Amino acid sequence: MYSFKYKHRIRYADTDQMGYAYYGNYPKYYEIGRVELIRSLGFSYKSLETELGIMLPVVSLEARYIKPAFYDDELIIETQLKEMPSKMITFHHLIYNESHELINKGIVKLFFIDMKSNTRVSAPQLLVDNLKPYFE
Amino acid sequence: MYSFKYKHRIRYADTDQMGYAYYGNYPKYYEIGRVELIRSLGFSYKSLETELGIMLPVVSLEARYIKPAFYDDELIIETQLKEMPSKMITFHHLIYNESHELINKGIVKLFFIDMKSNTRVSAPQLLVDNLKPYFE
Amino acid sequence: MYSFKYKHRIRYADTDQMGYAYYGNYPKYYEIGRVELIRSLGFSYKSLETELGIMLPVVSLEARYIKPAFYDDELIIETQLKEMPSKMITFHHLIYNESHELINKGIVKLFFIDMKSNTRVSAPQLLVDNLKPYFE
Amino acid sequence: MYSFKYKHRIRYADTDQMGYAYYGNYPKYYEIGRVELIRSLGFSYKSLETELGIMLPVVSLEARYIKPAFYDDELIIETQLKEMPSKMITFHHLIYNESHELINKGIVKLFFIDMKSNTRVSAPQLLVDNLKPYFE
Repeated sequence: MYSFKYKHRIRYADTDQMGYAYYGNYPKYYEIGRVELIRSLGFSYKSLETELGIMLPVVSLEARYIKPAFYDDELIIETQLKEMPSKMITFHHLIYNESHELINKGIVKLFFIDMKSNTRVSAPQLLVDNLKPYFE
Repeated sequence: MYSFKYKHRIRYADTDQMGYAYYGNYPKYYEIGRVELIRSLGFSYKSLETELGIMLPVVSLEARYIKPAFYDDELIIETQLKEMPSKMITFHHLIYNESHELINKGIVKLFFIDMKSNTRVSAPQLLVDNLKPYFE
Repeated sequence: MYSFKYKHRIRYADTDQMGYAYYGNYPKYYEIGRVELIRSLGFSYKSLETELGIMLPVVSLEARYIKPAFYDDELIIETQLKEMPSKMITFHHLIYNESHELINKGIVKLFFIDMKSNTRVSAPQLLVDNLKPYFE
Repeated sequence: MYSFKYKHRIRYADTDQMGYAYYGNYPKYYEIGRVELIRSLGFSYKSLETELGIMLPVVSLEARYIKPAFYDDELIIETQLKEMPSKMITFHHLIYNESHELINKGIVKLFFIDMKSNTRVSAPQLLVDNLKPYFE
């Protein structure tokens, strides 16, 4: 398994009139989690697009809302890869508030598209190579 | 079963650099779907909050991304209640593009909170009464 | 002068914990206003991009917040072209609430970019021709 | 004058199909700038609301778009207070890209509202005291 934690602060823009972070913002928090996990491996999601010509559209999303997040909370977004990506990549997200309470869980699945041919491909070798040490 | 359709146009604000509607916008489309379903029953989600003192936080969200939505597409958001709400209310969403292709499916579960006591309650009688004819 | 009105409802996603529509949402309302004004002329902003290869990046934005907008309010976005576009196009926006009170004023200036050469160009003839009757 | 710099990374959620950060996201970047400027003074915008009962609605916004911001750019948001707040507070924002080019300028004016009486008040003493050393 490979896991990475990243902090993200709730802004006024994120709140709703319940005083909570709006439920529709969590997919954005998951995006931040998976992009920063990839960066922690030594390259960037951006380079997948610009250098390898591969983009990752989302296939499915699951979210469980356990406790609300509030304005100015600095959340901890923990993102886990539990298995080596192949045709698909699955990110597991655990979001904690400043009191280290688990407030949200998410699972996002994406596949790999070759931008030239617009067809599905396998996980790029660069990603597989960088993850190998964590799955042995 | 009770079902309602509502149109929603994709704005530039909704697009991302893939040229798709960003995956994180779909929960907002589901919100539009469920709020307009409630309005079609003759009252409003707003009145649930302001008159009955009941709010509906989201418990869980599931989304399946089948095809992308593009800028300026006028989507059809079909929202279904397949069972009478009790402790929970479950909305099923089917999103179609202008060619009537199913592009996205979502399921959102919410519960009912009494805003004064901040405790979970059952579906308000007003909602149950309005839905009864469709579940007989 | 050419002027067009379009209705837009405030969603939960738009609110903040003050209970207002977040100030950062108004540029999106202005976008809705200008795109629907163009559609009312018989073509679409989308066709400017896809058929004429012209896009309109924003140069400047001014907004005056007069009164708050609230959840579920159906706003009226009035958009005005006070002069023929040439090198630049200037949209004036007046936003009213359901009680017909003016709650917000905005001015957005955009220029025309030829997407192939990535250079500034004049207003496309199609737009000029459609607007001519209103400026004579 | 008091000035503060804060970094903010552009997310996929922020991009539009031009491949730019959507123009409507800049007010959110200005919000981040002013909130982090206040935090740098040793207290928080949140405490203004929760402890002093004062909120700051926006009165006006001006933005100049000089160059686009792109996906994954880490922007530098420089926020300046050029004069002591009194009835109003004016934030000046200068946004730079990773190449230290100025890409956007913004000015946001807010006033102070006492949340109990819902009336306008002067800048809270706490804020004035913390800023005094920088305006002598």
